[in-house]
Amino acid sequence: MMASRFCGPIPYGTYEPLDQENFSNKYFGLLTAVGIDKDSGEMSNSWQVKLPPWSYDLSDAGKKVSDGWVFLTCYNSEEAFEQLEVNSIQNEMDYIVCINWKEMEKAANDPATYEMIDGGKVIDPAKVPGGVYLVPCPQSPHGVDVTPDGKYFVGSGKLSPNVTIFGFEELQKAIAAKDFQEPVNGKEVEGMPVINYESVRVAQVEVGNGPLHTQFDDQGFAYTTLFIDSQVCKWSLSDFTVKDKVQVHYSPGHLVMAEGDTCSPDGKYLVSLNKLAKDKYLPVGPSHPESMQLVDLTGEKMKVIYDAPIDPEPHYAQMIKADKIKDKLYGNNSTPGPIVSYPKDENRKGVVYEKDNAKVVRDGNNVTVYMMGVRSSLYPDKIDLVEGDNVTVYYTNKDFDQDITHGLSFTFYNLNVEAQPGETVELKFVANKPGVYPFYCTNFCSPLHQEMQGYMLVKPK
Amino acid sequence: MMASRFCGPIPYGTYEPLDQENFSNKYFGLLTAVGIDKDSGEMSNSWQVKLPPWSYDLSDAGKKVSDGWVFLTCYNSEEAFEQLEVNSIQNEMDYIVCINWKEMEKAANDPATYEMIDGGKVIDPAKVPGGVYLVPCPQSPHGVDVTPDGKYFVGSGKLSPNVTIFGFEELQKAIAAKDFQEPVNGKEVEGMPVINYESVRVAQVEVGNGPLHTQFDDQGFAYTTLFIDSQVCKWSLSDFTVKDKVQVHYSPGHLVMAEGDTCSPDGKYLVSLNKLAKDKYLPVGPSHPESMQLVDLTGEKMKVIYDAPIDPEPHYAQMIKADKIKDKLYGNNSTPGPIVSYPKDENRKGVVYEKDNAKVVRDGNNVTVYMMGVRSSLYPDKIDLVEGDNVTVYYTNKDFDQDITHGLSFTFYNLNVEAQPGETVELKFVANKPGVYPFYCTNFCSPLHQEMQGYMLVKPK
Repeated sequence: MMASRFCGPIPYGTYEPLDQENFSNKYFGLLTAVGIDKDSGEMSNSWQVKLPPWSYDLSDAGKKVSDGWVFLTCYNSEEAFEQLEVNSIQNEMDYIVCINWKEMEKAANDPATYEMIDGGKVIDPAKVPGGVYLVPCPQSPHGVDVTPDGKYFVGSGKLSPNVTIFGFEELQKAIAAKDFQEPVNGKEVEGMPVINYESVRVAQVEVGNGPLHTQFDDQGFAYTTLFIDSQVCKWSLSDFTVKDKVQVHYSPGHLVMAEGDTCSPDGKYLVSLNKLAKDKYLPVGPSHPESMQLVDLTGEKMKVIYDAPIDPEPHYAQMIKADKIKDKLYGNNSTPGPIVSYPKDENRKGVVYEKDNAKVVRDGNNVTVYMMGVRSSLYPDKIDLVEGDNVTVYYTNKDFDQDITHGLSFTFYNLNVEAQPGETVELKFVANKPGVYPFYCTNFCSPLHQEMQGYMLVKPK
Repeated sequence: MMASRFCGPIPYGTYEPLDQENFSNKYFGLLTAVGIDKDSGEMSNSWQVKLPPWSYDLSDAGKKVSDGWVFLTCYNSEEAFEQLEVNSIQNEMDYIVCINWKEMEKAANDPATYEMIDGGKVIDPAKVPGGVYLVPCPQSPHGVDVTPDGKYFVGSGKLSPNVTIFGFEELQKAIAAKDFQEPVNGKEVEGMPVINYESVRVAQVEVGNGPLHTQFDDQGFAYTTLFIDSQVCKWSLSDFTVKDKVQVHYSPGHLVMAEGDTCSPDGKYLVSLNKLAKDKYLPVGPSHPESMQLVDLTGEKMKVIYDAPIDPEPHYAQMIKADKIKDKLYGNNSTPGPIVSYPKDENRKGVVYEKDNAKVVRDGNNVTVYMMGVRSSLYPDKIDLVEGDNVTVYYTNKDFDQDITHGLSFTFYNLNVEAQPGETVELKFVANKPGVYPFYCTNFCSPLHQEMQGYMLVKPK
């Protein structure tokens, strides 16, 4: 389930001048349900839901009792389109958008509910009663996270110092009783009733300033990052009180715990993914790394025990049990797992497994190179071209051993590829620079890496 | 000093068919002396030296007594150009090429010694007697490393299990006495006399299989990576015997020690930069990280104390004293050091420091956007375009605080840039897709990052 971050006229490519009238009526957000083929792994646009012109932020799936639902936070229910620093933070409340995706999946089989736009089924919520509900949530919520038991969904305040805990059972009761309220922004949206805030809010915890994201342990505690306070706050899902805070450096956005967003978290550790590092590392120029910090949760107090640099603004991470990553190489084929080399496939386009099959084939000014890299040689090691030739190189790494990747560089043409063990990669270029140019394996070659080299000769026209 | 890895006709772009006659006579290697302007930091091609068609590998500069010289290893003195796996490893010896760069620098002021090729001065060693000498070194040496006192240069065998230690004083004596020998490949090269191997070889240490690179500590020991044995070997510069070996995982290429290639190494630690990791990390598909390992040298035996993943085939690293990295931000301006933000410069092209100066300027179908990002807004936040406009965006990050980088994305145009604190970046594109497209700060925004967003409207023609 992917929600659009910003909104616009649909389909993309449509032009609508930007004014309040147009923005509120002709600009839309979209939730997209991406289907994944269980066999091939291929992804497709299964269906979409047309949403009001708000900015959608994080989303989380229901669990156990709340399975079949998805929850999205949004901000800019003000529908501002300029001077956002003032205009998008006017309302006391924005929304968590609750979508019954099983209902939507059914609707996607009923042509009366959707329009085909850009080849996708775009469902109008007005035509699917019971599909979408809005739950008011204080000021521009950022994360929404569903507890491991699926009973609660937690909105992080961002501009409010609170996390707000909503009950899924309470939501169902309010829906059944049509316990609705006025829209927070005065705008009725057909097919998207606004749930009575007081009826579904189970608790509110004042965690600190700038709450952004929450994950969970296996002991009934929740952990929320505080961007402004530069802390992680531990609070209880039983009595909804703050239990501990730990200082991190600095300004955490996301955090990750061991399976901390699943039905069965492991607890013990969390990693705070900090947006800033400031003076944590030696200065090496204006561009420098940010910081992630490992926090031990097993003691009385939370404790930062390790610190590592990371690329700017880390935005997501998962920590999963190692035994879920099976290795086919080691004979554990009972569950699907990552491969360590590409399988041998004689039918693959351009593949070469024997040096005698390596060749350069010319057809007019189209030249195809069938190349093989194997420790410690490249075949062929000479490519004769004429200026202007259209060249296609298929490069197969015949080393099927784990970890034996072979780079290939035509440096003077600024072409660089890497073939993983067993992989065949394709490279296309026009031989537009006459001359004699070495090509060679850039990594990983062999103890004798001098030998994985050849020459490409481009004869002037 | 940069030596060409492979050789070819010069200037690059010249075509010469590839056969033995041409390869040996019309293909060349090049040593390039890159001059660095001490004020601006700008680099330029100062002069080059034409070398025989061998493959040059690592190089190192002389130190103290050997200051003014540079040493390059080479392989393929066989001058093979095909089936390198057989043909380039025929000779028992290749060379370390010793170049008196101060002589070459003088020669670069004498037009009689060089030809202008591609705008560079290419010096012919035949015209600079005393400029280049060849020292025979066993089979395809890889690294050459000069000891901290500058007295020795050490050739790593690669295909020989030895490191060979040559004396700089012995080299000077052999030069003075014209103590020369036959070329290792039977090819005399004018202006490049071959020094008598026995006269300059001070010692040979059988370190193990696949020696590649050597660094030094402050206690008189040298440390050589052994690619095939997957070890680092510690040996003595006093008695030239092996003192210790430590197993690493796996196949180290380069290594780095604290200032280990300088006149004053710090010792204590080395990092082995391994080319392979194999089963060190959980498999996550055919592409996976390699490994670097921190080795503690302070005890009786070397000991691996830390292990970290790294991108494939790490090829270089420096470990320098932290106090050499001064931080202007913290007021320590006595030595040059990295800046933490770009300085304010009103004359910089396209710069905007005040929101009132942010603007969109149209001149026919050329549109220039003067944009400023500052927590928590983008100015302007609306850009009106017409399909086909040529657009230039100057984007200034007005936050001069350390670490406050601001990304900028025109996602639907696949354009992404990042402006470091105080930096102005330039972006050019053609508005070839009509429609309404959000643009926004991708990192680092602010607690209220929702606000660093705007719209680009591209009206159809």
